[in-house]
Amino acid sequence: MIKARVTVTLKNGVLDPQGKAIEHALDALGFGGVGSVRQGKVFDIEVDSTDKAKVEADLNAMCDKLLANTVIENYAVEIA
Amino acid sequence: MIKARVTVTLKNGVLDPQGKAIEHALDALGFGGVGSVRQGKVFDIEVDSTDKAKVEADLNAMCDKLLANTVIENYAVEIA
Repeated sequence: MIKARVTVTLKNGVLDPQGKAIEHALDALGFGGVGSVRQGKVFDIEVDSTDKAKVEADLNAMCDKLLANTVIENYAVEIA
Repeated sequence: MIKARVTVTLKNGVLDPQGKAIEHALDALGFGGVGSVRQGKVFDIEVDSTDKAKVEADLNAMCDKLLANTVIENYAVEIA
């Protein structure tokens, strides 16, 4: 059993209205000095396998096919 | 300027229908052996400050007040 964490974030330059809304909400709550907020997604995935290299290749393929929109998003795969 | 990453994940035992849907979609795409998928959120936050301890305390307060629902979610704050 291999545990992995995939983090998907918006590329620089892509507008993030959700992040902007959070930024304003934090400001309204009195948290000063919040410069920028960008929201992304995280996936904790367990794979039944012992072959780390294959799992890493599979996870990259999962990101390309389903988990991330590579036109506007970056992804990072970390294997625990 | 301090950059931080806040990761919000569902607590164990809390149902994650979105994660289940991704699990089934990955299976349908032919990725075998995917045991479990849990989806969470990630926030990349920039704070104009040089006081790491205060920023960390602020970020924990932001999570408690806005970013996470602590009834069903855990959060982790990492300062870069």
